[in-house]
Amino acid sequence: MKLHKKDRQKILKETIKENPFITDEELAEKFSVSIQTIRLDRLELSIPELRERIKNVAQKNFSEEVRSLPIEEVIGEIIDISLDEQAISLLEIKPDHVFKRNNIARGHHLFAQANSLAVALMNDELALTAKANIKFVRQVLLGERVIAKAKVTGIDHDKGRTIVEVQSFVNQEIVFKGEFSMYRSRKNG
Amino acid sequence: MKLHKKDRQKILKETIKENPFITDEELAEKFSVSIQTIRLDRLELSIPELRERIKNVAQKNFSEEVRSLPIEEVIGEIIDISLDEQAISLLEIKPDHVFKRNNIARGHHLFAQANSLAVALMNDELALTAKANIKFVRQVLLGERVIAKAKVTGIDHDKGRTIVEVQSFVNQEIVFKGEFSMYRSRKNG
Repeated sequence: MKLHKKDRQKILKETIKENPFITDEELAEKFSVSIQTIRLDRLELSIPELRERIKNVAQKNFSEEVRSLPIEEVIGEIIDISLDEQAISLLEIKPDHVFKRNNIARGHHLFAQANSLAVALMNDELALTAKANIKFVRQVLLGERVIAKAKVTGIDHDKGRTIVEVQSFVNQEIVFKGEFSMYRSRKNG
Repeated sequence: MKLHKKDRQKILKETIKENPFITDEELAEKFSVSIQTIRLDRLELSIPELRERIKNVAQKNFSEEVRSLPIEEVIGEIIDISLDEQAISLLEIKPDHVFKRNNIARGHHLFAQANSLAVALMNDELALTAKANIKFVRQVLLGERVIAKAKVTGIDHDKGRTIVEVQSFVNQEIVFKGEFSMYRSRKNG
């Protein structure tokens, strides 16, 4: 659907606000215009390019918030986190994440992103994974950016276990989901 | 239980045959003798040290057997494999596998060992993980050697899915188990 420039720019602005990780290519396809048009739109609207948008979001330093592990041990980049509630991270699939033969991301990297986000989410000095139930919904390819969204969905005070659900997306399409049962040293208040 | 030398050496030989990955320290403890005694026993029995025993087992080259991925993409060292039946691998937990804070192995490395062994087990050019249900039974520490044993327990010919069960052990104590549902490009014959 082709829109008039004014309408397109309005929706463009909302789209980027909702999903700051969308690329110019994806926007061009969405609006059936050229990438050049999207770039001009962004310039006119003073919306920085994707790389800058990611940097802006990631500039917030979460290292003081995360308690269960040093932030550099989180696989992927934390974009947002509220301990014991929800967290978001971004992992760009690089050559060392994929099977050489077919450029498909290896499962344990998607698992590592989700699992380390679940650990980071725990408001505790010690958090370990007890169980996980995971599903690889679709293949992820070299160069794709995986957004993992984790949220605490339940707490078992007696056992000291916290249930964390993680869903990972590429371009808002789900690629991985997992339910993690986390052990923690202190019962959650 | 202290044994006479002759009896000890007989049981020692059998023990190492059953579990070639046992260390001299573990043997010394088992027989309530010094490590030096175990070393002398091994010398007299012409049993090479652990490092050599692992090399001997690993010297068999499985790279022509494994079809689903280049053997260097398997996490850990393949010790034995019969495609579509069973496989064994060994992963030594090194400093980059553990949380810095407590030297506990990070879950995704145990997962990667088990998952890549399940992939290697597939007698197919293309094999991907669809689902997994995993349990971390006990913590694994820096320096421990994890033996993963994978076996095919079921094949769904219609869906083209193969079920692989993996159990991982440290000193014959179970530390991890997982059930992997593997997608493969060809239905298994």
